[in-house]
Amino acid sequence: MGATGAVGSELLRVLERRNFPFASVRAFGSARSAGKTVEFGNEAIPVEQLGPGWFDSVELAFFSAGSEISRQHAPAAQAAGTIVIDNSTAFRMDAHVPLVIPEINGNDVRNHQGIIANPNCTAAIALMAIYPLHRAFFVRRVIASSYQAVSGTGARAIAELKQQIEAAAQNQQPPPQVYPHPIAFNLLPHIGSFLPSGYTTEEEKLETEGRKIMHLPDFRASATCVRVPVYRAHSVAVTAEFEREVSVEQAQEVLAKAPGLELFDEPIHNRYPMPLNVAGRDNCQVGRIRRDSVFENGLSFWVCGDQLLKGAALNAVQIAELL
Amino acid sequence: MGATGAVGSELLRVLERRNFPFASVRAFGSARSAGKTVEFGNEAIPVEQLGPGWFDSVELAFFSAGSEISRQHAPAAQAAGTIVIDNSTAFRMDAHVPLVIPEINGNDVRNHQGIIANPNCTAAIALMAIYPLHRAFFVRRVIASSYQAVSGTGARAIAELKQQIEAAAQNQQPPPQVYPHPIAFNLLPHIGSFLPSGYTTEEEKLETEGRKIMHLPDFRASATCVRVPVYRAHSVAVTAEFEREVSVEQAQEVLAKAPGLELFDEPIHNRYPMPLNVAGRDNCQVGRIRRDSVFENGLSFWVCGDQLLKGAALNAVQIAELL
Repeated sequence: MGATGAVGSELLRVLERRNFPFASVRAFGSARSAGKTVEFGNEAIPVEQLGPGWFDSVELAFFSAGSEISRQHAPAAQAAGTIVIDNSTAFRMDAHVPLVIPEINGNDVRNHQGIIANPNCTAAIALMAIYPLHRAFFVRRVIASSYQAVSGTGARAIAELKQQIEAAAQNQQPPPQVYPHPIAFNLLPHIGSFLPSGYTTEEEKLETEGRKIMHLPDFRASATCVRVPVYRAHSVAVTAEFEREVSVEQAQEVLAKAPGLELFDEPIHNRYPMPLNVAGRDNCQVGRIRRDSVFENGLSFWVCGDQLLKGAALNAVQIAELL
Repeated sequence: MGATGAVGSELLRVLERRNFPFASVRAFGSARSAGKTVEFGNEAIPVEQLGPGWFDSVELAFFSAGSEISRQHAPAAQAAGTIVIDNSTAFRMDAHVPLVIPEINGNDVRNHQGIIANPNCTAAIALMAIYPLHRAFFVRRVIASSYQAVSGTGARAIAELKQQIEAAAQNQQPPPQVYPHPIAFNLLPHIGSFLPSGYTTEEEKLETEGRKIMHLPDFRASATCVRVPVYRAHSVAVTAEFEREVSVEQAQEVLAKAPGLELFDEPIHNRYPMPLNVAGRDNCQVGRIRRDSVFENGLSFWVCGDQLLKGAALNAVQIAELL
């Protein structure tokens, strides 16, 4: 469900290139997508709408059409025996729903009751580096700033950045539609909606989802999430405090071995992670690793990951593979 | 000196619009600028080169042509009685050179011995918000991530971003010349050069310059500095820990009264600082103020400022006005 969206179309490509076993594949979308088709293999699959009983004979459903759609349609599918892997926020913090990054808490999949949640993209990318370091040094708290690509918002936001860039070349500034302000040549410290705490819903997820995924109820994280004029791949500047003494060499060794992660850390040769380089790649990259100067046992580092892949479609398919 | 550069040309505009008192103005540049003129008022001023005795009858010289030029030419001018306001890193940490943000340590100008240093742009913009909070709550340590515009690099970098954006529209990617990697639709976690600590020279400045400007030898700061595809105005996500108990209301009150700073903090109405809005403005803006979730007495906030103005030209002219 959400087959024509930024995540949905990536999901079809991931299923295909990982040779996911299937008897048949169906694509669902909103009324806006009626009459469209999506490509899968050499076929053009018609985009259906979720009608009554859509889940009959569906064993596994991927949802990436927002939390309202998930809340509305996933429970009936679940009740009928369909397993739902949900990319929205709808069920992530539900105690009966595992929230899974296969490289971190793949075993949690065993406890599913028909719905498994896919984590927030920025949290997932940051945790890909935080968790291996936690296993080595025991993480206490994290301060993170994100630099998030427009494709995290969806296909319409990609088009909006493109239009604004083209308009700027003509000295025009069309009114923004997807974001509240222009994103071309600008930054928006505003992802999700604002909470009474002053944080946004997006910013809280690193802490709340991090606790659940890492099984660390005391994990503390403070994030600032910022939308940047980049098409694809999110980046996160992370400062983490640990209980044990840290060293850059040990951290590099741990991160170099971590699954789904590449150590890319030779700054004197201008080698560090960048969104343009990780876009389209399954693995996240981490670099700029240094002993942090304000925490006794602290490390600062920079992680980039393709948020449509590890932050969404790839992670969802990896969960399906575990099943 | 550096009159045709991004900072130099802004400096001429600032001198003009603030009606800085002068008998005559001369413009200097590199050999590359020979034959060029710069506009000042209604005049076109020829760009001269620094020859022997260039400083004869020059009372006040602004340098913004890099630290090598400053190191080479400022001392002779100083010896001849010319006061040099230097925008480079050359003398900032020199014990005999005041490093001044007029709103913070304007009195330090009194101790000058012929050279006064202008601070790093990102440090200056962050300190415009950190210092008033320090006065209220006593700052201990800061963790900051920057989002720095290409005009911080100079006029050639502005042109490079523009070219890369245009080329991308044709599906081309010309080899980068100013930066080691493309900046269009990308992020470079690399400003300045890399130090053995793993931090860059740019990243260290928030701590070293912050200590000197705020007269706080124990101030600790950890920064990650990132170049972003924005033309003008730097942004900084700041998390600060204080000795005294903090509240968002008190912080807002303090920041609303701080000189050179505007409180722009109504997130539920989509009002927060953004580079597009502060570009061309003298005042920095601060918003997204919240109690930090990982520090007992912590605040997180978001500051934007035009780094060619408060981060460079405006601050230099403000120093000259103090003189």
